[in-house]
Parts: sequence; structure tokens; C-alpha cells
Amino acid sequence: MSTTTTAPTAWRAGSGSTLDQETLERIDKWWRAANYLSVGQIYLLDNPLLREPLTREHVKPRLLGHWGTTTGLNFLYAHLNRVIKERLQDTIYVIGPGHGGPGLVASAYLDGTYTKYYPDMTEDDEGVRRLFRQFSFPGGIPSHVAPETPGSIHEGGELGYALSHAYGAAFDNPDLLVATIIGDGEAETGPLATSWHSNKFVNPVNDGVVLPILHLNGYKIANPTVLARIDDDELTDLMQGYGHKPHVFVAGFDDESHISIHGRFATMLDEVLDEIAEIKRRAHDGDESRPRWPMIVFRTPKGWTGPDYIDGKKTTGSWRAHQVPLANARDTPEHLEVLRSWLESYRAHELFDDEGRIDPDIRALAPEGHLRMSDNPHANGGLLLKDLRLPDFREYAVDVPVPGGSISEAPRILGNWLTDVIRRNPDNFRIFGPDETASNRLQSVFEVTDKQWNAQFEGPEVDEHLARAGRVLEMLSEHQCQGWLEGYLLTGRHGLFNCYEAFIHIIDSMFNQHAKWLKVTNDIPWRRPIASLNYLLSSHVWRQDHNGFSHQDPGFVDHVINKKAEVVRVYFPPDANTLLSTYDHCLRSRQYVNVVVSGKQPAPNFLTMDQAIAHCTRGLGIWEWAGTEVEGEKPDVVLAAAGDVPTLEVLAAADILRREIPDLQVRVINVVDLMRLQDAREHPHGLSDKEFDGLFTADRPVIFAYHGYPWLIHRLTYRRNGHQHLHVRGYKEEGTTTTPFDMVMLNDLDRFHLVIDVIDRVDRLGAAYAGLRQRMQDARLEAREYTRTHGDDIPEVRDWVWPDAQDQADANMVDATISTGGDNE
Amino acid sequence: MSTTTTAPTAWRAGSGSTLDQETLERIDKWWRAANYLSVGQIYLLDNPLLREPLTREHVKPRLLGHWGTTTGLNFLYAHLNRVIKERLQDTIYVIGPGHGGPGLVASAYLDGTYTKYYPDMTEDDEGVRRLFRQFSFPGGIPSHVAPETPGSIHEGGELGYALSHAYGAAFDNPDLLVATIIGDGEAETGPLATSWHSNKFVNPVNDGVVLPILHLNGYKIANPTVLARIDDDELTDLMQGYGHKPHVFVAGFDDESHISIHGRFATMLDEVLDEIAEIKRRAHDGDESRPRWPMIVFRTPKGWTGPDYIDGKKTTGSWRAHQVPLANARDTPEHLEVLRSWLESYRAHELFDDEGRIDPDIRALAPEGHLRMSDNPHANGGLLLKDLRLPDFREYAVDVPVPGGSISEAPRILGNWLTDVIRRNPDNFRIFGPDETASNRLQSVFEVTDKQWNAQFEGPEVDEHLARAGRVLEMLSEHQCQGWLEGYLLTGRHGLFNCYEAFIHIIDSMFNQHAKWLKVTNDIPWRRPIASLNYLLSSHVWRQDHNGFSHQDPGFVDHVINKKAEVVRVYFPPDANTLLSTYDHCLRSRQYVNVVVSGKQPAPNFLTMDQAIAHCTRGLGIWEWAGTEVEGEKPDVVLAAAGDVPTLEVLAAADILRREIPDLQVRVINVVDLMRLQDAREHPHGLSDKEFDGLFTADRPVIFAYHGYPWLIHRLTYRRNGHQHLHVRGYKEEGTTTTPFDMVMLNDLDRFHLVIDVIDRVDRLGAAYAGLRQRMQDARLEAREYTRTHGDDIPEVRDWVWPDAQDQADANMVDATISTGGDNE
Repeated sequence: MSTTTTAPTAWRAGSGSTLDQETLERIDKWWRAANYLSVGQIYLLDNPLLREPLTREHVKPRLLGHWGTTTGLNFLYAHLNRVIKERLQDTIYVIGPGHGGPGLVASAYLDGTYTKYYPDMTEDDEGVRRLFRQFSFPGGIPSHVAPETPGSIHEGGELGYALSHAYGAAFDNPDLLVATIIGDGEAETGPLATSWHSNKFVNPVNDGVVLPILHLNGYKIANPTVLARIDDDELTDLMQGYGHKPHVFVAGFDDESHISIHGRFATMLDEVLDEIAEIKRRAHDGDESRPRWPMIVFRTPKGWTGPDYIDGKKTTGSWRAHQVPLANARDTPEHLEVLRSWLESYRAHELFDDEGRIDPDIRALAPEGHLRMSDNPHANGGLLLKDLRLPDFREYAVDVPVPGGSISEAPRILGNWLTDVIRRNPDNFRIFGPDETASNRLQSVFEVTDKQWNAQFEGPEVDEHLARAGRVLEMLSEHQCQGWLEGYLLTGRHGLFNCYEAFIHIIDSMFNQHAKWLKVTNDIPWRRPIASLNYLLSSHVWRQDHNGFSHQDPGFVDHVINKKAEVVRVYFPPDANTLLSTYDHCLRSRQYVNVVVSGKQPAPNFLTMDQAIAHCTRGLGIWEWAGTEVEGEKPDVVLAAAGDVPTLEVLAAADILRREIPDLQVRVINVVDLMRLQDAREHPHGLSDKEFDGLFTADRPVIFAYHGYPWLIHRLTYRRNGHQHLHVRGYKEEGTTTTPFDMVMLNDLDRFHLVIDVIDRVDRLGAAYAGLRQRMQDARLEAREYTRTHGDDIPEVRDWVWPDAQDQADANMVDATISTGGDNE
Repeated sequence: MSTTTTAPTAWRAGSGSTLDQETLERIDKWWRAANYLSVGQIYLLDNPLLREPLTREHVKPRLLGHWGTTTGLNFLYAHLNRVIKERLQDTIYVIGPGHGGPGLVASAYLDGTYTKYYPDMTEDDEGVRRLFRQFSFPGGIPSHVAPETPGSIHEGGELGYALSHAYGAAFDNPDLLVATIIGDGEAETGPLATSWHSNKFVNPVNDGVVLPILHLNGYKIANPTVLARIDDDELTDLMQGYGHKPHVFVAGFDDESHISIHGRFATMLDEVLDEIAEIKRRAHDGDESRPRWPMIVFRTPKGWTGPDYIDGKKTTGSWRAHQVPLANARDTPEHLEVLRSWLESYRAHELFDDEGRIDPDIRALAPEGHLRMSDNPHANGGLLLKDLRLPDFREYAVDVPVPGGSISEAPRILGNWLTDVIRRNPDNFRIFGPDETASNRLQSVFEVTDKQWNAQFEGPEVDEHLARAGRVLEMLSEHQCQGWLEGYLLTGRHGLFNCYEAFIHIIDSMFNQHAKWLKVTNDIPWRRPIASLNYLLSSHVWRQDHNGFSHQDPGFVDHVINKKAEVVRVYFPPDANTLLSTYDHCLRSRQYVNVVVSGKQPAPNFLTMDQAIAHCTRGLGIWEWAGTEVEGEKPDVVLAAAGDVPTLEVLAAADILRREIPDLQVRVINVVDLMRLQDAREHPHGLSDKEFDGLFTADRPVIFAYHGYPWLIHRLTYRRNGHQHLHVRGYKEEGTTTTPFDMVMLNDLDRFHLVIDVIDRVDRLGAAYAGLRQRMQDARLEAREYTRTHGDDIPEVRDWVWPDAQDQADANMVDATISTGGDNE
């Protein structure tokens, strides 16, 4: 799996290490250079290498950035360089304290990568000036580790996902080391706190190794951190309780020389890597016990090497070092003086020559080519991305002799196809979910794979489909599922996340960060496209029979479409064949977030595979077989649906209408690709106004049955000609303990109410069909009453099928794949 | 602080315990009765006490619920009853595995509370029948612990917040024990994983005690749990690492008699409560060391007391017991038989008399009155809620001699008022935030209080405003802040959560659950209204100078308004005085979620306090001083704004227009209360169409500058008459590394673009003002170019003030409260 230019011998032990004085001094020079370049980025507009005395004009007018964590990051980067080079160890980094952005830019500049990707950042005085100037400057680069930073797969934005991303990167990369720095602030977040347990899911043979380094610098913006303020033995217990072997390193709190510190750390790092190599060796030799992987506690002062006190207040070693310690350096001469001596303390003249070139001895610390962490192709996953070998989804089609003529649990059909996706792609496709892959009806994948698990086993009586290696990862943490999948995708692989619809909101903010990452990388030429992030939300708002109101929320779609149209897609396949077609499209796509909502309960199939492909290709369309239009005439009313339950109710309403008002011309439209409703100017999938009018008409009433909150449809269509004729029925936060049909009735999305809507909105019907209207009201009351007496839906509703299917033999109507066992929701 | 009917002697040691055979048998009878009532709720439609042979007609047609966790919950409830009664210990419960809802209903029925609140659930055969029937049945109660469950403050919906809620309940309730059951599934979530660290924030003297009970039943829906599959010493290390003293209890895996098990657990529980009493005593005596609070690991089989095997598959002690083990009991005679013998195993005839009354000896286990966990007033917080003693916010007004005539950081002014709110309400108001209370400019509260912290201290050089007791709680976990605040509010207190706007999405799903809780409790007569949940989002999308694109997302408001109008409110106060007025309103309100967005950067004040009060009372209004309308005529164009930055840009645009097109009649509208835009039929704050037209006109162009995503304004107004004339400018996900004005330009929200919008949309201007239009374009380019050269905004924009303020002396223009120190974002 290795992709480095120099083929590494993975997981060498460190016998070749040479921790002589020269090496330690080289490490120190790198560290000083990286620190100098970091301070320079934060403060300097000009005079980058202090060729002339520092004046206020050399200082940026707006000082923006984060200093406190940066020197620690630089220290670790320097030391990792040494061991990577010595061991030829394929390594990427994940920087939890990503606001220390200048450090990673500095390191990439020192090893030559930065200039490779940004040729304008030359290796001379002028290049250093540009490097400094661009940092957190209008039109420049962000202050955080970002997509713009070579070597990064982890934005320094929201905190909490460093370890999840790291493990995602490690899966199926058996020779890769993921050095992961966790800030002690970040360590307080929930997602990070549980992500330590990832070590029970990683396989020591087939997966790579995550080396967590807890950067205990003690402070956040304005407070101490929790983990820095508990007893040492408590912290050790915690790390052991998380399943790690901790190595504790403390430095910077006394007068110990930097060379001595480097010596101690380098020795420890060799030990740690030797331990890892030994664990890997044992695992290859068949040892199946769960390793206690090493981790490092790295306790140093915050803002290490910065000014100790500013205006008499302790700065280094306190929260005051978090951001920009000398915020008024431009306007306060004393502060400018502190800045000058701070910059000079790194002795840049020893590190750069007279033209501003980096001392070759510094660069010699770094490995070469793709072994440089800044230039490791795993961190630009699109470089490594291979197309999935997808089986032909048409071959998995369910038979649909007539519309409604068979019944399936759609995700179960999808599962059949995914089973073969896994079979054909044994090492670059994974399914993630919080304990729900079977519940979401994808269980046939367990014919060819297992759930990967490296904690204890209890035996086959209770451990079904659980194995040390497998393509499915389940942990009851949506944050972990999302974070693992993101890490997996960002390093050039494929996958999907299946989740309850309501609880996907748990990762709303993670979605935000990933969507922003995709949007930004679209504009970075050297970043290569990665596989899309695919959701399957199959326990949805309309069928929370076991759970009720607390499990009902269809708003993730609303959240998603706030992001740039170029990176988000939303699909509501109405049946099994459309789901297959949709998902085939999703797994082929790049650089998107695809949200697919498809219920898991038995439901009728309406489209043959050919029809499904045509329908999905258009994204929406008229279902002529369901309507009662007369060729060449305009319909009286349009019934539209997006979502499986709404589609069923719309068809049932259309059925009532054709029986009760035979001369009413009804058009039935089904929407798979929600983005089609938008204006072509707003979304690449959007319909032109002309196309929209051709479908929905500009002047006929449109009754739109929608899976989610109704106003989303208004939001997508408010500029359309016929918008004032559009009436949307959707979820109104009116759930309670109900049966399925009672649930749609509560939200006025039911067939009877849709018929009432038609009567109320088609002018000529109003008075003439008062009787039908009353019957519909009565039918609702009767159905409601039935549920309260019998605890089930009224059979004529529950067992309703589209009339064409009524003629079929019962035997044909039940898809053989439907479970008769317990409903494991 | 105690509110029990029998005044408890808090934190007694357990010398009075009587673990004789009679007591243990009483515990066992309670347990059997609760288990029987739980199974009955899940399965039985009729024949509740098996007076006749069980037939399929007695079984519910749809079996919905969760069995696996229930007997463990019942076991713990029974044992807690004993110690509460013996020690008169004020106690509430928090049930993390809340899907075990039938257990809590059963327990409340056994102690008499259920019949108290639901008189229809009588204590006889018919009452038991109704109790069973209603469970997870149309029109009945949810299958989870829910607002409908007496004694609950914690919905059994989304998992992860049991400990956060528990600690929220414990703060400022020094005599309260919060018995908190954590499922081992839930324990895998991120929020739960970090919430263990709450013990570093609770004060042993002034706060109550949380007793975490980790219910290690080993399985989730379809998988083992992580914590049940690590070594015992690893789990012990983890709990010790979290700062607890673990007590491990294992039962149910062998033939030990239930009486023996009860004896062991009761003895251990006495030890645990004695330890707690001892810790409390030491703390009262002045011991300031952080206690290692006890916690219990409670390892039992999942589905304990249920059928061991069903159809030859291991059920009890496996994931198969999670939901409804005999899902086809109605239609499979063998399963019906298993159900019969399962039900009979509890020997209900020994527990209920011939009329269905509970054996008085069982009830005697429970404490009395408000000591019953089901009837503890802390769990119906509105009962205990006291109005805050609010200082008159008018007295904190900033001076605004003319519009724009002073400058403030609005949250800093709010902080002055909050300082006195804290002073006057020393034990029922708290501020929560993830390390940002000072950054968000509320730092003056530290004049009267501190950040509560019970981990290590390092001394005054670095620990500013950190103390063992204080009204501010800061941990770098939005989940914890939200969970603590929810627990605090639900137990009848007040508070606010200050957070970065972008990262409040982290708790989107928690907001959902809380909003649903509020909506449901509005319809439960015995639930009393609680204080609103107040957000202050003051590091907002438009000023992420230090952080950039990854920190920009104004979509929380979109998320919030998906919930029922009756429980959500959103405010955009444009300056300091309006913020004061708004927040006074929020802290007085009940049963809402109030979202207040207000920037923290220095910005002009526009309204005097009297004007601010009038403006906030209306929620929106015409700012006549800013417009150029002629009395009695209709304006040519309406410029509207919601949000502080948009308000500034609209005013600057109005300034340009009055200078450049003096005869143009411009109306300036400012919106504080976003819900006013909605239809009166949609939201209680909504304007009627007539009012709306009176403000916005039905036919004039409206240029609306909005803080967030523009389509939200369309969504709120799409039914309004003038909607087709509405043009919204807002955030478009176009941020990058910029200066503040560059940021608004990137999103076309800037003054120059607003003027262009006016020219383009007021018909008569188009051609005549092509020159002005060009100048505006040029001004944008010039401003953009300036930022890229100087790294700062162009001074004529940055220093612009409303013309009325121009005449003032400079000295009057700067509010003395503005910091000159570092910008601690």
C-alpha cells in the first residue's frame, strides 16, 4: 500500500538511530527556524529577516493568529522528521490544535514543500516576506491549519475530531503512521473524549497506527485545561483506562538546555516507535491480543520560547500566550522592543543565509519526497483515489410487474448491491454507523464481511458478525462515525454513513466543516478531488414507531442546503430501484456531500429499473401512469411528492381522486433530486423556469407532499412563477405516540387530507364535492379512532395498494427478502 | 434548600440500615412487581393480571418498546427507595438508558405517584389494564422516559447527556442526590465520555452530589458495548482516571439467589452513601481537596429475568434482549407460551390482591411524599422556580446623544447588568460557556463572581477569576455547557449560555430535544413552566477576523425556527441598549428558547434607552431619523436590516443615498425580533399582513440586509404581499481571510452594494444614476485593493459614523468601557 517515493521498510526498529550532538543540534536549528518563521508570520509585514532595525512599519496593522500552541507543534514536527528519515516511516500528521497554523506552514516551507506548491513563496528574503505577509492577511491564508496547508487533512476549526480523523486515515493503510497531536483544550470536547476508544476498532495487522500525542500546555483561551490540572497518576490512569500505554514527557519549566531536552525526547520517541514496531511484529506473527498502543503526554509551557512576562503579567506558561501576546506591538514602543528581542532570540542569521536561503543542514533533517509529512500523498487523498469497482446495480433490481406490484424494504435491496461492492473492493470501501447497520436493513453485507472489533470477544452465541477485521465499523457515537469516515475519505478511499435521520443532527457542525473543506479545496489546484461523503438516512421521521417524538426531525436536509450548492446533493428515492440508481450515482461522485433519505420499512415498489434510471437521471418527473391527464390539455391540479411516505400518500390520494372525480385531470410528479426544484442559477442541478413551468405549470394548484419541514420546499421555489399556487404538506413537529398512518394524519400529510386540499384549491370542485370532502374528514376520524381502539392502522389504509397491483396474485406481491422476524429498529 | 415534605437530615450515614431478611424480601417484591408491570406494558392489551389464561387477543398487535435495560433500572429504583427512606435523602433520578421507559412508569405506579398525576390509572385491575394499554400505543405515552413520566428531567431520546443533566441539577442544590444511570451504550457517545469530568466543576459544599451508576449490561441494539469488553482493570483505571472511586457490582450471571444479590447490593449502596456523607462532612469542615466521589459499575445481564433463549438463540444476556424479544408473540403460539411463563415467573398474584391493589408491603419500600423520586419537586422544576430579582436594565443604558453618537461593545454593557443580576441572585442564576465568557465581553461579571473550578489551582499569576465556587462555568465542551444549563433550568433555576455562533451547531440536536421537551410539557398540566433557555451568540459570522471561514456559520437560527413557534424566539438587537432590553425580556420569560445574536466588537449605538425599549417592544420598526421619507407619501424604497453589522451597512448606505440622491424617499426599518416577520398565523409574534404592508409596503422594492443566510428571510415572508419585491442580502458562504469590511463585500452585504441594489431596483434611478452606480463599483474595488495592500480596512469606511454623530466632539464618541488591550477572541 505504500506510496512513498523511497520505498520504506515499514515499522523498522530504531537501532540505526544516531542521537549524537550533531543530530540534536540539527533538530534544535529546525525548531528555532520553524519558531522564527511562526512568529514572523504572525507579526511581520516586512523586514522578514531583520536585515534592518525593526520599526512599527514592519509590524502588521492587525495582528491575528494563535501563538500558544505553535512551538510545541514545531518541536514535534522536528523530531518526527528525524525518525521518519531514519526509519523511512510513511507518516502523516493530524494537528488537533490546528489554530497553530503558522507552525505547519513554517515546517512545510523548511522542508521545501511549501515552495513546491506555492512557487511564489521562494526561498529567499522576498519569499520569506511573502510568506509572512500572506498569513491571516486579506487575500492570504487562514490562521489555522487549513486545506491550503500542505500535508493537512484536518482543518483547525472546530475542535474535537483529531483522533477520529486520524483513525479514519489509518484504516486500511497498514504501513502508515498517523502522528496525532491533541490539544488539552480539545481533549475536553465530547467527541475527542470518546475517540480514544478508537483503539478498540483498529486492526493491528491490516490498519495503520495512530500515535496520539496529548499536548498538555495547560491553558485554553482564558482558563486552565482539565487534564493539566489533575494528578499525574489520575492522568496515567485515564490513558491506561482508554487502553493506551502512556509515555510522559515534561520540558520547558526549568533551565534545562534545549539540546538536553531534544536528547530526552528523541530517546523517548525512539522507544515509542520501537514499541509500535514490536506490536506490529507480534500482530503479524499471529498475536491477537489487543495491543496497548503507546501514546505520549507532552507537557510543555504554553507559548514556549515566547516572552515570559509582558507588562509584568506572566505570559509564557499561561493562557495569555494563547493568541497574540503583543497585540499592540505596532503602537507601543515597549512592546515593539519585546517583539524585537523575541525574534532575535531565535538567531535567524544562523538559520538563513544572506539571500534568505535556509541552511542546508536544517533541511537535511527532513526526509525526502513523499516521506515529507507536508508532501505525503495520503494527505492529498485524491492523488491515491481509485474508482470503486461497482457491480452493475441493474442486476439487483426488484421486479415491478406493475406500479406497486411488489413490496420491498428498499435499504435491504441496496444492501444486496453493497454486499458486492464490498466483495469487489475489499480494502478501500467501508460502512460506518452507530450500531444500526442491520437495523437499517443493510444486513446482507454480513454475508461477505463483519463488523471490525478489537476489544474482547465472547463467542458466537452473542457475537454475530463481529471480527478483528471487517468492512463495517459500528460505535455508538455519530461523531466517531462521521470523523472516521471523513478521515477515510480525505486519505483517498470511499464509504458511507448510515444513521437515524433525527440523530444525524449530532454531526451538523462536523458536516459544516467538511463541506467548507470541500468548497475550499475545489479552488486549490494541487488538491485532488476526493470521494463524496454519502449519508443513508433510513430510520426517518415518519416511521419512529418504537421511539416517537424525540426521534423525529427531518431538518438535516435544511441544514445541508445552507452550504454551497456546488458541494451538496439531496436525494429522496421513492422505492428500491430508485434507491439503487441513486446510490450508484453517489458512489461514483466526487467532492460532494450526498444525503439520501430512504425508509427501511416494507413499502411498495413503483418503478421498474429502466423507469427508475430514467427518473433518477431526470431527478424528477411526471408519473403518467398515476395521473389522469388528457393529452394536450393542462391538468387541473398537480400532486407532487418527495420522499417515500409522501409518495405513497400522494398515490393513494390520486387513487381516490380518479375514483371519486373521474373527470379531474390530475398530474402526479415525483421528486428524487431535491436540488432540481431550485433555480438553475442557484444550483447546478436546478431546473430552468421554463422546465419548471412545464412540469408544475405556472397557474394550477400544486399540492406538494414533502418528507421534511414544509417551508424548505417554499424556500427552494419562492422565485418560481407558480409559487403562489404551491401548497406544501410536510412535517410540523406534531408527532406523538402513534401508528404510521396516524402520524401522517397528525401532520396533514395523509391521503384524505391531500384530497381535501385538492377540493379546497381547485375552484370548480369546492361546492360540488362538499360530500366527498365530508367523507374524507370522516375517514380521518374513523382511522384515528381505529388506531386508538386497536393499536394498529385501519386495514383498508394499511393494506392499500395501487389499483394496478390489486389484480396481481398475492403471492407476487410480497418480496421474498422481507424479514418475518422481529423489527430490530 | 430542601423541599421535601419530611425535612431530611441531609447526608446521614447509614448506621440505621436494616438489611434484614424482611427488607431484602420487600426489595425483591418491589423489583418483581416493577418487572411484571414493565413486561405487561410492553406486551399486554388486556388480561393485565392474568386472571384468565393468556391468549393472543391479550397481546398488543404492534409490540413496541425496549426491554433490555428495564430490569436493571427497576432494581436500582427499588434499592434507592430503601436508602432514601432510611436516610430521608432528597433524591432525583436521571436515566441515561431512557428507552427503558416502562420501568420508570412502573415504579411511579408502585409508589402511588402515577395515580396522583393520572387519576385514570387507578390502583385496581382496570387501572393496570389502562396502564399497560397506554404504553407506546396511539394516543398513549411514549416508550421512553419522557416529560409525561413523573420524576423525569431527562428524555430518553438521543443518548449522551445523562451526566451533564445530572450535574446541572446538582449545582446549587447542596442537599440533593442525583442518582444517574448511564447506559454502556450511551457511554460510547462523545458528550457522555467527557461529562465524567464534571466532577472537577462541582463544589462539594454548595452543590449536590451526582452518583453515577454505569449500567454495564453489555449490549446495544446489535453489538457489544466497548466498556463491557475491556479488562476489569482497564475499566477501573478509566473510572479512576475520570476522578471517581469505582465500586464494582456484578450479578445475574450465575445461580445466586435474588435475595443474596439484594443483600450484596444493599450493603454496597450503604457504603457508597456513607462515603458520600463522609465527603460532604469533610468538605463542610473545610477540606478543600477534590473528593474522589464514588461511582458504581453495575454489571448485569441485558434483559435480566427475561427468557434465556428464544428459538434456540441466546436472548437474556445478549443484544437480542434490547427491544421486544418476542416480537411475534401474538401470532406464534410457542412465543405466546414463552410470554406466559415469563409473565408468571414474577408471581403477580403475590404482589397484587384480588382487586389488583398493590401489596402494601411493597409500597412500604418507597419513601413518602416528595421524597419519592417520582414526585420530587426538583424534577418538576417549575414548582421551585423563583423569579429572578432583576436590576432595572435602564440604569445600565449607554448614553446615545445622537444616533451613532457613542460606541460600545454591546455584550460588555450587558455584562455590567449581568454583574448585578448575579449579585442579586447568588444561588439560582448561572452563566455557562466554553472558555469564552471573557472573550465574549461579559468579563465584568468577574467583579462579583468567579469561574467555578474544583481541579488543581496554580496561583494568582495564572488563575484569574478561578475559585472553588462561582456563578460561571466554563469547559471546552458545548455539549457540557448545554447539558449543564438544561439540567439547571429543568430543576427550576435560570441561566444563559454564551457561545461562538458557528459552534453552537455542535448542540443542534440537544436543542432539538430540549425544544421538544418544552413543547410537550406545555400540554402536561402538572408540569410547571420553567425558565427559558437563553443563548448569547456574540462571536458571530461577520467578525471572525482571527479565525476565518471555518468559524463562519449563521445557520443556528435556521435550525431553531424549524421547531414549534410556541417555544422559539430569535433576536438581533442592533446595539447596546437594545441588547439590554432584549435580555431583560429573555430572563423574565418562561418555556422558550431565546436566541440572541449580538456582536462583541466596538460598534456604534443608535438608540437611547427609551427608544430601545420602544423598538424592542415593537420588535421591529421604522427608524425615521435614518430615512428620507416625506410625511404622507410612500417611500421609493425600503432598506431593512436585522443584525448589528447589517444595520451598520444599511445606515451607511442610507447616508450615501441622502447625499447622492436627495430626492429619493428611503425608509429604513430595523428588525430586532425576527419572528415578527412571520405570519401572525404561524408565530405568536407574527405581524398581520396589514401591519406588514404598513411597514414594508406591498409594492416598493425592499432591500433587506440580514445577518444570516438570506433565504431565511424569504422563508419567513414568502406569503407576504410584497414578497416579490423583496431582495435579501446575507451570508453566502463566501468568507475567506479578510478584514471586516472585505468580509461584507465578499457577501454583497456592504453599503456600496446596497446602494447599487437600490439603483437597480428603483425604476426611475437606473439610467439616471449610472454614474453613481459606477462610483459604487469603484469604491468597492478600491476598498478591496486597500485591504490587500495594507491589511486593514480603508479608513473612510472603517471610521465612518452616522452624520449626526459627526458633529460631536471626538471625546464623546468613545465609550470609556472599550478595552484597549489585546483582542482576546
